[in-house]
Amino acid sequence: MIRIYNAKILTMENGMQPFDGEIQIDGSRISYVGEKISAFSGADGQFEREIDARGGLLMPGFKNAHTHSGMTFLRSHADDLPLLEWLNRQVFPWEARLTPDDIYHLSKLAVMEYLTSGMTANFDMYLTPDTIAQASEDCGFRTVLCGALNDFSQSVEQLDEWYQKYNKKDSLISFRLGFHAEYTTSEEKLRALKELADQYHAPVYTHSSEGLPEVISCKERTGLTPTAYMDRLGLFENGGGCFHCVHMEPKDLRILKKRRVSVITNPASNLKLASGIAPIKQMMDMGINLAIGTDGPASNNCLDMFREMFLVTGLSKYRENDASATDADAVLKMAALGGAAAMGLSDCDILAEGKQADLILIDLNQPNMRPLHNLTKNLVYSGSKQNVRFTMVAGKILYEDGEFFIGEEPDYVYRKAEEITGRIFGY
Amino acid sequence: MIRIYNAKILTMENGMQPFDGEIQIDGSRISYVGEKISAFSGADGQFEREIDARGGLLMPGFKNAHTHSGMTFLRSHADDLPLLEWLNRQVFPWEARLTPDDIYHLSKLAVMEYLTSGMTANFDMYLTPDTIAQASEDCGFRTVLCGALNDFSQSVEQLDEWYQKYNKKDSLISFRLGFHAEYTTSEEKLRALKELADQYHAPVYTHSSEGLPEVISCKERTGLTPTAYMDRLGLFENGGGCFHCVHMEPKDLRILKKRRVSVITNPASNLKLASGIAPIKQMMDMGINLAIGTDGPASNNCLDMFREMFLVTGLSKYRENDASATDADAVLKMAALGGAAAMGLSDCDILAEGKQADLILIDLNQPNMRPLHNLTKNLVYSGSKQNVRFTMVAGKILYEDGEFFIGEEPDYVYRKAEEITGRIFGY
Repeated sequence: MIRIYNAKILTMENGMQPFDGEIQIDGSRISYVGEKISAFSGADGQFEREIDARGGLLMPGFKNAHTHSGMTFLRSHADDLPLLEWLNRQVFPWEARLTPDDIYHLSKLAVMEYLTSGMTANFDMYLTPDTIAQASEDCGFRTVLCGALNDFSQSVEQLDEWYQKYNKKDSLISFRLGFHAEYTTSEEKLRALKELADQYHAPVYTHSSEGLPEVISCKERTGLTPTAYMDRLGLFENGGGCFHCVHMEPKDLRILKKRRVSVITNPASNLKLASGIAPIKQMMDMGINLAIGTDGPASNNCLDMFREMFLVTGLSKYRENDASATDADAVLKMAALGGAAAMGLSDCDILAEGKQADLILIDLNQPNMRPLHNLTKNLVYSGSKQNVRFTMVAGKILYEDGEFFIGEEPDYVYRKAEEITGRIFGY
Repeated sequence: MIRIYNAKILTMENGMQPFDGEIQIDGSRISYVGEKISAFSGADGQFEREIDARGGLLMPGFKNAHTHSGMTFLRSHADDLPLLEWLNRQVFPWEARLTPDDIYHLSKLAVMEYLTSGMTANFDMYLTPDTIAQASEDCGFRTVLCGALNDFSQSVEQLDEWYQKYNKKDSLISFRLGFHAEYTTSEEKLRALKELADQYHAPVYTHSSEGLPEVISCKERTGLTPTAYMDRLGLFENGGGCFHCVHMEPKDLRILKKRRVSVITNPASNLKLASGIAPIKQMMDMGINLAIGTDGPASNNCLDMFREMFLVTGLSKYRENDASATDADAVLKMAALGGAAAMGLSDCDILAEGKQADLILIDLNQPNMRPLHNLTKNLVYSGSKQNVRFTMVAGKILYEDGEFFIGEEPDYVYRKAEEITGRIFGY
């Protein structure tokens, strides 16, 4: 058992007010959340470790609800290019050279960065779910895999296999049905996927309405927006989620609301690729579940929930021309609870007895966290990776005071990443 | 003398290509920049310290070219409010309660945060230049003070006194003539300021065209945009700088270009207060000198050059609907050289022999800096405070590996900040 005391605790269970207290962890789960238990002070051998939080903030870990971890090999390789040139010349041809083992190492590099930013889980859509799962498992990290069915790779049969293989109880890894996008996946395949989703009563996830050309093209082909077209195919009848949702019509939002589909926003990627700004306030006002993703490191380029949180609120304020739009509490909920809900991690959301111990300790003894007027505003508007004192997943601290505990030396991960990129780009 | 070896060095003198080498510092100045000098390896007593950069990047420090440091007391106190309600109810009344000594301590808190983000100088416009200067000097930090003439505080005579008092050779502190804004300063005072500026051939700095209502109001009063109105008064005849410049007409840009006026952009503040997005690409294409500021912590709320750099390029790409707009090299130059030029710090810009040793060491052994395809893109798109290994001002390391060396315990600064806010807000 681990005990963390002298903390401010933000459970997110009822409102956003922290209290002073302690948390105890037994195995992978939280066994106590509450006021300080004085009987426990003074070690009596029942705790393997007692951690003085030094007044820091314990809160649920952030959930990176949309990413492509293996794309770390493309970070800073191709930026400042128009979107289509970027995708067709600088992404697809290089991805074709990746091996499953490459993706294992490249995913670990991303996991390390998630940990530095207080993320305790990711929702990962990429080429080789098996080696992605292995990388996360070896690090002790939690990953929800997302199927990426399309006309060029992954089949409905494979999705079915992965679905059965990975959705075991108490595992760090789970799998959700998903396809890349309506513009890369034939209607025939989408209909087969819908049948599979119905069989398992499983939600379905996909990229949607990221850029305006994509929406225009879908309307030309089908007469419908991407959201309406996918809904007509029945893909959302078991719920699900859409990544991006930048260019949305009012009817699209009503469909998402009706079908209990989550929206995962990726503001940094949408800016950097000049895709646009999502209508976060409208979706929030309608009660659509919202989550935040970094998108992949080829388009972002960093994997930092603090930057994303500031962008969600800042861009919403700009878009609505209203400095009061989309406040800090709402954004912090998106980054933690909204992500957990979108990814189906109902066991890893709030801090409460019996829940998975997926939590982070935020150092408040840093200049950017002072004064302590309002902790949630401090986090969303001023927070930064250097405030993350530790990141714990399933009861294990994987990152603490700048050091990684992922069963691998950081230098080895860096060296592998350089080797892989050297081979692929012929350096 | 200090020696830093085993580094990648980005001097910014000619282009943006780093090389492997070492830097030596004698007193406050750089005495050597170049390839490794093997004769020096093995201590012979001539260096008080030899630092192994472990392959990290040495580069010029960032310049925070617009801020109001003392406003740290308002961080997270009043956010998510419409602009006018924020300013009139949550800023002005509380500022009236500040003492000069309060501003001393509150400025130190800001200086600490600047150091964590690799900033080696700030351009500070606030109420009490004398205690701001004292705070920076006591920390060993470099501050360019900016006059804030307006109809309610500071007079032309005071600006003259400060100008003479602070512009001494080799001092950490300097002073530039400035006024708050055309909408808070009478034409009579502006004419007197222009006379003073002519007397010293001194550039003049001010807030300008931050919000659209400000521009509309100026046109109603004067028939001119703020830029054209100030130019008609001759205020820019000795150069200078304008903070914000969000809502600019083509004619305004031509005036700035003609008068060699720098533009200091503050993208996070402009988003958070829903002011808008500045036309960075247009200004850059015209060859206007550009610099970056955080603005004050009441509106930003954090003081982080990495976040600002990403926003400058991301928002420019969004505004131009072009993912190739405003590339990383250009933004990195704005954050360092552009700031030095705007602030008149010609001795603190590039890394070269004889220049002030205002420099930073960036840790590249972090997941967000790998792989090493392109260092400037890594910094601008993926960089974060946790990559700053040390920040050196005038040859002294003020921040290293998370520790501050500012002649004061961090806890004391935090406690003073809490005491001051407690007194002001009656907690």
